Formats: sequence, structure tokens, C-alpha cells
Amino acid sequence: MASSTTTLKGDEFDRQLFESVLKRRFFFTEAFEIYRLSPNFKGDNRGLFDYGPPGCALQANIVDMWRKHFVLEENMLEMDCTVVTPELVLKTSGHVDKFADWMCKDSVKGDYLRADHLVATVLKARLARGTRGLVKDSPNLEQATIDEYNGILAKIDNYDGDGLAELIKQHGIRNPENNNEVLPPVPFNLMFKSTIGPSTAAPIYLRPETAQGQFLNFKKLLDYNQGSMPFASASIGKSYRNEISPRTGLLRVREFLLAEIEHYVDPEKKQHPRFREVSDIVLPLLDRETQLSGKTTSRTITIGQAVESKVIDNETLGYFMGRIMLFLAKLGVDQSKVRFRQHLANEMAHYACDCWDAELLTSYGWVECVGCADRSAYDLTVHARYTGTSLAVKEVLPEPVKVEEWQATLDKKRTGPRFKKDAKVVQSAVEALDQVALESLAAELEKNGAVVIETPALSDGTMNVELSQELLAISKITRLQSIREYTPNVIEPSFGIGRILYSLLEQVYWHRPNDAARAVLSLPLAVAPNKVLIAPLSSHPQLNAISHRLSARLRKMGIANIIDASSASIGKRYARNDELGTPLGMTIDFDTLTDGSVTLRERDSMVQVRGLEDEVMAAIRGLLEGTETWEQVTGRMEVFGAQEEDY
Amino acid sequence: MASSTTTLKGDEFDRQLFESVLKRRFFFTEAFEIYRLSPNFKGDNRGLFDYGPPGCALQANIVDMWRKHFVLEENMLEMDCTVVTPELVLKTSGHVDKFADWMCKDSVKGDYLRADHLVATVLKARLARGTRGLVKDSPNLEQATIDEYNGILAKIDNYDGDGLAELIKQHGIRNPENNNEVLPPVPFNLMFKSTIGPSTAAPIYLRPETAQGQFLNFKKLLDYNQGSMPFASASIGKSYRNEISPRTGLLRVREFLLAEIEHYVDPEKKQHPRFREVSDIVLPLLDRETQLSGKTTSRTITIGQAVESKVIDNETLGYFMGRIMLFLAKLGVDQSKVRFRQHLANEMAHYACDCWDAELLTSYGWVECVGCADRSAYDLTVHARYTGTSLAVKEVLPEPVKVEEWQATLDKKRTGPRFKKDAKVVQSAVEALDQVALESLAAELEKNGAVVIETPALSDGTMNVELSQELLAISKITRLQSIREYTPNVIEPSFGIGRILYSLLEQVYWHRPNDAARAVLSLPLAVAPNKVLIAPLSSHPQLNAISHRLSARLRKMGIANIIDASSASIGKRYARNDELGTPLGMTIDFDTLTDGSVTLRERDSMVQVRGLEDEVMAAIRGLLEGTETWEQVTGRMEVFGAQEEDY
Repeated sequence: MASSTTTLKGDEFDRQLFESVLKRRFFFTEAFEIYRLSPNFKGDNRGLFDYGPPGCALQANIVDMWRKHFVLEENMLEMDCTVVTPELVLKTSGHVDKFADWMCKDSVKGDYLRADHLVATVLKARLARGTRGLVKDSPNLEQATIDEYNGILAKIDNYDGDGLAELIKQHGIRNPENNNEVLPPVPFNLMFKSTIGPSTAAPIYLRPETAQGQFLNFKKLLDYNQGSMPFASASIGKSYRNEISPRTGLLRVREFLLAEIEHYVDPEKKQHPRFREVSDIVLPLLDRETQLSGKTTSRTITIGQAVESKVIDNETLGYFMGRIMLFLAKLGVDQSKVRFRQHLANEMAHYACDCWDAELLTSYGWVECVGCADRSAYDLTVHARYTGTSLAVKEVLPEPVKVEEWQATLDKKRTGPRFKKDAKVVQSAVEALDQVALESLAAELEKNGAVVIETPALSDGTMNVELSQELLAISKITRLQSIREYTPNVIEPSFGIGRILYSLLEQVYWHRPNDAARAVLSLPLAVAPNKVLIAPLSSHPQLNAISHRLSARLRKMGIANIIDASSASIGKRYARNDELGTPLGMTIDFDTLTDGSVTLRERDSMVQVRGLEDEVMAAIRGLLEGTETWEQVTGRMEVFGAQEEDY
Repeated sequence: MASSTTTLKGDEFDRQLFESVLKRRFFFTEAFEIYRLSPNFKGDNRGLFDYGPPGCALQANIVDMWRKHFVLEENMLEMDCTVVTPELVLKTSGHVDKFADWMCKDSVKGDYLRADHLVATVLKARLARGTRGLVKDSPNLEQATIDEYNGILAKIDNYDGDGLAELIKQHGIRNPENNNEVLPPVPFNLMFKSTIGPSTAAPIYLRPETAQGQFLNFKKLLDYNQGSMPFASASIGKSYRNEISPRTGLLRVREFLLAEIEHYVDPEKKQHPRFREVSDIVLPLLDRETQLSGKTTSRTITIGQAVESKVIDNETLGYFMGRIMLFLAKLGVDQSKVRFRQHLANEMAHYACDCWDAELLTSYGWVECVGCADRSAYDLTVHARYTGTSLAVKEVLPEPVKVEEWQATLDKKRTGPRFKKDAKVVQSAVEALDQVALESLAAELEKNGAVVIETPALSDGTMNVELSQELLAISKITRLQSIREYTPNVIEPSFGIGRILYSLLEQVYWHRPNDAARAVLSLPLAVAPNKVLIAPLSSHPQLNAISHRLSARLRKMGIANIIDASSASIGKRYARNDELGTPLGMTIDFDTLTDGSVTLRERDSMVQVRGLEDEVMAAIRGLLEGTETWEQVTGRMEVFGAQEEDY
């Protein structure tokens, strides 16, 4: 297995050096830094980051590639929904009650610690020291304890509040910063809350995911798709999680860009028409059973085999896992530093029935970057039930089928006066009852003379109603069915763009041999913030004019480029752009004035070729479009070689 | 002047029909519609909209064009900053205290009305009825009153709270919905407020503009730009305004996409190097004086003349107004439905010293779509002062200059013990004093033996300090100055993407002659959601296969396309895509199987040509890249003519 602490050239990865490069080149910065440094700042700006020009361009390029790879390739229906979300929507979706992490209060200092992170941090520290406490003179760890700790860590995501409380008590876990005791864990809802309009009676939250907006529009999306199934909607946008105590840079942030696909599929037809395009792809899988046995070693298996053996539940889930792998490869992610890990039962979000995370290996360990969840019919069902709006698909059957089924009939002359303005809602609730429900209700109605059925929200806020035999009849009938109605299942690949961006940067970072100060980011052409550096060798006005002409020419071809006409040596300008991940560099010198030739330098090899302007332009276009390789370019043009550059 | 109520074909504009097209084709929808329609929904989702697939694509295309026209064209430094903003930042910027609208409470019903809109609505209704009240039998308006009302309406944006209170009292203005009296206006801050982290002690707001994030990073941006001035940063992102009572669809929303440029310029050098590229452009200007005289007629004048005559304050402001005009033209905005209106003194945001809005004419009247403000050095100055961080530019002078100047010296042996950890902050405050301040402080110090100076925030929260003669000396010295220090001025073109999108859609909407049900959106190719419709004439598998091959071929060329293989008639499929604004349509029929030819239809004229697949592909590429016109296409291919289509 690849180690998390080596660069792609095999050197040791130095996170401090790496981060200093990213900050120096303004890939990102802590938001509100000048305030945080001010003595009077009492706020909390942790987990908030701004992207500077190269980070912003890299992010835009990743999003652009995502849109092409997923949305355009499969004609997904892209939406842009609001972040501001009324409380009622998120109450129904379960987020108000269940979207929480457990936190412990430091009993002395009063600050809050995320409970699972606290346990993991302390146990890892003990394993590292080989002792049962954080201090040196506590008893040494026995093998049984080492195994126990490792077992807990392998399934740390599977503990609920009680489980975490038990661990903290049993293993004497305290705040590692000051050895203070901590209070038992309490839940903390992760959504930012506010109110809308001048009245404070209308609470809203910032969405924790883009998915809900897509679900609420399912009916319109299906119409737009002319009723045809299956199909997917997609959305790219900011989402928010009010993390308890974020510490790990870009990996745990409170405001982040999510790119989410909601693929709607008939629950009885989870095959995928393009499955065979991905079935031979080999994935490293770490399934649920392996983790529960206390192990963390993944096995490699083709997607076809994994679906056949039911390790991956169905073709559609497998199809998207394959597509995710292909996307990560296009971005430049090291294929030996990816794995797919299945969620444990208690770790899964409340809406999911299965979930695989694509994790990337970084210096922080394995980082969840893409979730691929099967949300079943959960969300569409709860929203349909609450609002009384059908979010089902009506499928016209090829031939009508004779079916025997239970049918419920309301006596409208009586239910009208009885339920008044709620009558329609009660009617829709009765119509929504399925056959299993009707069969048991029929028996109950006969036995008790009345039944209670669940309804969408009524005007008094309750969500059920009692119906007596006078109001409701349930009987068995035979009819010709020509339309089948079902609520689709949702397969959801969900991409944390910031985490992908950070992990990718770690993986493409290295430095020139024997010179840790000369860093390089080997970003592929397709995602590099700038594709071409243009560097005039002197400040001569004619060279300057050529630089601007070349820049405009590249811009017209849609190729992002940057002129560096500063007085720094050419070596320094190259080095600066190596740190920015700029793959190509053109220099313009006095020979350019006489013979129209320019040089083209490749970032990773530092090899330079020289050719006429048009030849070099054609090479740049070919490299970008993938019709020519750098080897082919060096084959047809005069090579300068990778001489050590003046720095 | 163009009328707001005619389409581009001269027909009367019917907003209801227009909006039904946009909703039917899912350009946008009210957010959370299925909840709003639910009887139990007590929340407020007004001013929140979701974009469906065509709206989302149109928005992305407008943003893409904006980025190319502004950011790439001038190498602006694009950033992506957080929406979540600590209160202290927005307190300093003035938004916590001043970013508010005035609202009146209905004295009976208790709901809130925006005060300026209330006054305008009532006065407009009286003018329309010709009476002094909202009821028919109130006295008729005299000419003097009509003039008075029109005068108030022309400068309605110029009234503050007291002014609005006076108008409401003087003109007996009541809630037009129920004739209830309203209470005097009170301010309502327009920012959404929340808290960050588990402690409620850390208040945050959702940003009302992207600008502040850019300003706080000014130092890093200047470094990234290698110290070179002038330059611009830019940002595209969601911003939030908690509007009091939004009613006008996409034009007044609580969550919206802003695209903002912050151009940093030496206050003594507001010339612009590319000014002559725009100086001959004619703009329709409605300046401040004209509005205060009660008139609303704009005059046309070249930008060059406007700057020379000081109607537009400086070249940089004029340059961006010209660039905005060119951008709107590229989008397809009707040039006769644009004007630039200068803000009135009380209308301007608290940070601006001058502002021109680009307004587009719609059925709602003139709509502010782009603001072009001169924010002077306001923001950089207040943030630098609060945080004690320099946000100034240091310019190395070509030659040192001998200057006589006041100099302040602190006795550090005494200030250290006196101010302890605040000593550095006091020191920086003294260093930041300018010559005017020093001269008057010198006199005061001599007279009173002590002075009070303003400081960045100190550890006790105060922002000033008293310094006696024992601590501070101020004297006149002569020295050689080789570096000039200044805080840049900021020119800020700020684009409300949603308002531009809506206004553009109104302006490009029309219908086929004598058939109001057949709507067309004449969006230019560059911004249309889909460029090409592919329609196989039957469901024959071979036609279907060709459709998919053509779609993939277009996709590879980066051209967004849509296959409609539904069983609807070809006329209906064209009509659907006319409403989606799809400029081109390809049909595949049985001739395609035998001779490889396809047809290409142009949306506005309905003219069709027929040619070989490659010819048609070349035509599509040429039309998109602007190297061929539709006239040239019809010149070189067989024309079918615009026969009335089967519908």
C-alpha cells in the first residue's frame, strides 16, 4: 500500500513545507485573517477559507471537468436551488432531529470537543507512546489493549452517544490539551440557523446538502424529462455544516462546495444500461464486514465481480462507483491512493440504506472525498407524505394486467362536513395507502369499527386521523391495471470539491532533487490554474509587445495564461510557476525578434524545445486536447535539454 | 424611447403569458413550492427561487461570458471567499449599523411593508386613478398635486426614515391592501444573522456582497500581483439580503448571484490605459441633477464627452461603464432598453461616493442590474484602521524627493509599561497619522500638554488613547522621501446576475404572428441553454443511433445539445425548443440513412437548410464561433423555406 507520507517522487512528505507553498502562492488562506490576528477578535473563524486566484481557478477547473464528465456526458438535469431552507423542510427530511454530532464539554475550560475525534485522538496518542495514559510513566500497553484500541479505532464511526460515553468512561479519556475531565457527550445540530423576513417566527437553516432542493422539484424534473425514467438531476453549490471544532485545514470546513447527483431509478430495475462500460474496472474495496472485524485492509476486485457477489448492492451503485474512479483518474489523483470504504450501520446518515465513500490517502490518513449513497425512497416518501403532493412515477404498462386488490372508499358526504378544509388532505392520505396497509386496516376496521391512519400535516398540525366504518369502507375488488405507480429510489454520488482539491494538491506535490525549497505541483494540464507562463527575457518594449500578442492569441483559443514580465531571473519565474502548477512556459528573447522562434518548457522534466511561434502554438493546443504527447513534441522540435536553471 | 410593454416584434408584452412559458419550461420556480402549497406551511419562502435545467444553464452561460469578458480579458484576480462573515467585520464595514431598509408596520394586521415601496405604490395608484385617495369618490388630483407626486417619485430613493415618515403623514398614506393606518418607519437590517460553533457568543452574518472578502485579502492580492498597480480582483458568488417583503419575482430576491469586480487604483491617477477603446461609445445617461429637478429623461453622450465634462467623474469609472455596455450587448440586451442612472446622495450605499446603475427596461419599469460605484478608499481604510494592518500601497518614487514634514515620536521606555500588550497597536496608530492630523495635533499638544488619538481596537475594546507630552513628541523635520504610501481607491462594477437574466428573458421574448401560444425566446447562441436540438423523425432504432452519434459529436466539440426522440410531432418538438430558446434544430429522417444528409433549422426565421452531416456540423461551429452568419449558411446550402410547421 502506498504510504501517506511519501511524495510522488518517493521523498518524505513534509506538510509544513507543502502548506507554506500553498499559502505563499495564495491557493488559499484562512478567511478574515487580518481580523483573527487582531487582539480584539473574539469570534470563531475556524473552518472558513478563502481561495486566492490559483485555488479559485483550480476549483473552477475541477468543477468544469465534473460537469463534463457527469452532467453533460449523461444529460443530467442541472439545477441551482437556494441555500436558505425553511425549517419545516428540514424537519421533514429528518435533519432538524438527526443531523448532529456528539460533543463533550471540557469540565474546567468550558470549550467543546467533538466526542469521536476526542476518543480517536487520545487512543492514537496512547498507541504512539505505547502507554495507557498520555503521560510517560503510566503502565505500558499490553498486546490485548493494543488490539482493543485498534479495534475501537477501526469502527470509531459506528459509536452513538451512549457508546462514546461508555468509551470515555471506560478508558478514562480526558481533554488531551490540559488533562481536564470532560462531561458526557451531548448532540449538537450541525446546521446554521437564522430567521427570514422581519418576523422572527419564520426560522430557516442553511442547507447541509444540495439534495433536498432537487428532491422537492422531482415532479417538475420528471415533467421536464418528458416522464422518462431513469434520469438524474445534479447540483453544484455551497453547503454548510456548523462543525463543532474544526482543526484540519481544508479537510473540515464549515462552508464548502458540494457537487451532487441524484439518480432516480425504479426500485425493481436497478440495472444500468451502461454498466458494462465500467464492469472491468478494478476497485480497492473495504467493506462493512472487514471493518467490523477490526481490520482496515481493502481488497481489489472488479466492479462486475463485486456486484455479482453482492458486495456492491446493485449495478447502478456499481456504475457510479466506476464513474467516480474514472473521474478521479482524470483529475490526476494517484490511483494507488484511492479506496472505497463502505459505511458502518451507525455511521450512515439517517436517510441512507447503503453508502460507499471514495477515500483519498493524504498526510491526515484516508479522507472521505466522495460519498456514493443509496438513499432508497426515503426523501421522496417523507416529503410526499408531509405535503400530500405525489412524488411518484406513473408507468404505463405495456399491457393491462388483471389485479385483485384492496380498495378504500370514503363517504364524501360525511367526510366533507367532518374534516372541512382538511377533507382533501384526508382523501389523499387514504388514496396513498398501499396494499399491505389496506389489508391490515380492513381487518382492524372490521374488528374495532374504526382505524387511525397517518395523514399529511393537517391544519391543526397533527398528522393522523381516526376514521370510523361510517366514513370509510375497505373491500377487495378485481380491476384491470394499466398504470403502475412507484416512488423512485435515489442513488447519490456526492462530491466534496474542497476535499478533492486539497487531497489532489498533496498528491501532486514534490520538490526538485536535493532542493526542498524548489517545490513543484504536477497538476495535469486540464486542471492546472494557468496552462502557460509567458516570460519575456528582458523588459524591452518589443518583447513586451510580443508577450501581449501571444497572450491574446492563447486567450482566443480559450487557454488560460499568465505573463510574468517581472525583473526576476528566468529561473525564479519558472520556479514560481512550478509552485503554481503551470505545466508549460514560453520564453521570448531577442532571437524571437529576428527569427520568430520561441521556447517551450515542460514543468516536470524542465526540458525545453525551440520552434516557430505557430509550431509552439500547435504543440500547446495538441497537448491540451490530448492529440499530442510531450514525447512527440520533443521528437519534432529542437530540444534544449533540462539544464540546471539559474535560480 | 422604447416602451416597456412591447416585445421585440412590436407586439404588446403580456407578462402572464411570458411567465407561464418560463415556468412551463422550468427556467425557474418558487423554491419549496410543494411546501408553500401545503396547508400547514407558516413560513416565508418569498424571494427564494430555484433554477431548473434551462435557467441553470442560461445562468452558467451568462457567468461564463462575464468571466471571459472581464476576468480573462484583463487578468483580474478571481477569488472565492466565504459567505459566512463574523459580525466584527461587518460592524467595521458599516453594514451592521447602516445596511437597512425602512419598514412600516400595519397598525391592525401587524405585517411589515417596505416604506419607500409603500409610498411609491400608493402615489402611483393615485396618479393612475387621478384622485387624491385610493377610493373613487375622493377629490380629483389637481395639476400641482400631479407634479408634486411625480417629483416625489423621481427622487423616491433619496428619502431617509424621517423623510418617509413625513411623506406618509403629509399624504395620508395607508396600507393599500386594506386601508389600515401604518406606524412610522423603523429601520430593518437586511442581513441574515446566525451564530458559529457550539457557543452562541460568536455571531455571524451571511454576506450582503462579495466585496468585503476581497478587501480583507487586499495585501495578499497585491503581493500575488507582484506589487504592481492598478489591478482588479473579482468574485462570483451567492449573496444575501433579508428583504422585508419581496413581491416582484426574480427581481427582488433574498438569495442571489453577484459577480463583482474591485478595481484598485491610485487616487491621484484615475486615468485608464484602455480608456480610448470605449471613449466613443454613446451612453444614455440620467444624471443626479436631472433627477433632482424631477425629470427622468436620459440624454445620450459619448463616454469621452461625459468624462471631459465631469458628468462621469473619471476615466476609470467611464471605462467600466463602457465595458458594461459592451457586455450587455453581447448578451443580447436590447440597446434601446438600457440606461445609466446616477445615484442620488441619500440613495447611495454608505460606502460609496459616486455610483451609476446600468438599468434595463422591463415590464416592471427600469430595473437596476449593474451598479458601478466609486467606493473611494472607504473600505480599505476602515479595515486597516480597525485591525491595525496596513492595506496601503508603497510606491517607489523614480527619484527621492526632499520633503519637510511633521514627525511623531513615542518614548518607548514609557509607552511600553504604560500600554503593555496594546503598546504595538498604539505605536501603529501614531505611525498611521497623516500630515494634516500631525500639524493640528502638534498645536494641540503644545497648548494642552496632551492629545487624544484614534487607534485600532485595543484589548479593552476602546479605540482611542490619550498621550501626554511625556509620551509623545511632534516636530517638523526635513527628509528624503523615496517611497510614497497611499490607500487605493476602489471602482466597483457589481452585477446582479439574476436580474440581468430575468430582464434579458423579457427582452428576447415574442410570439409567432397571430399565435400568442407559440412563444419564442430569441436568446443569442452564446447564452442559449442548449445550442442544438436533435430530433429523429421516427423512433426507428437506426435514426435513434444516429441521433446519439451526432449528440456525442457535438458534445466533443463542447456544444450543448438535447435529443428529443419523443413521439410528439416535429412541429411540437420545434415549438418546445423555441420556448427554451434553442437556436438550432437538426432533424434526422429516412433520407439520412440513404444519403447522409440532415436538416438544420434556425429558430427565429424557421428557415431550414439541408446538407451532408459534415457540412451541417461545420455550419454549427461557424455560427457559434462567429465565423459564419445564417445568411451565409442559407447561401451555400439547399433551403427548405419557412413553411408553416405542423403543430
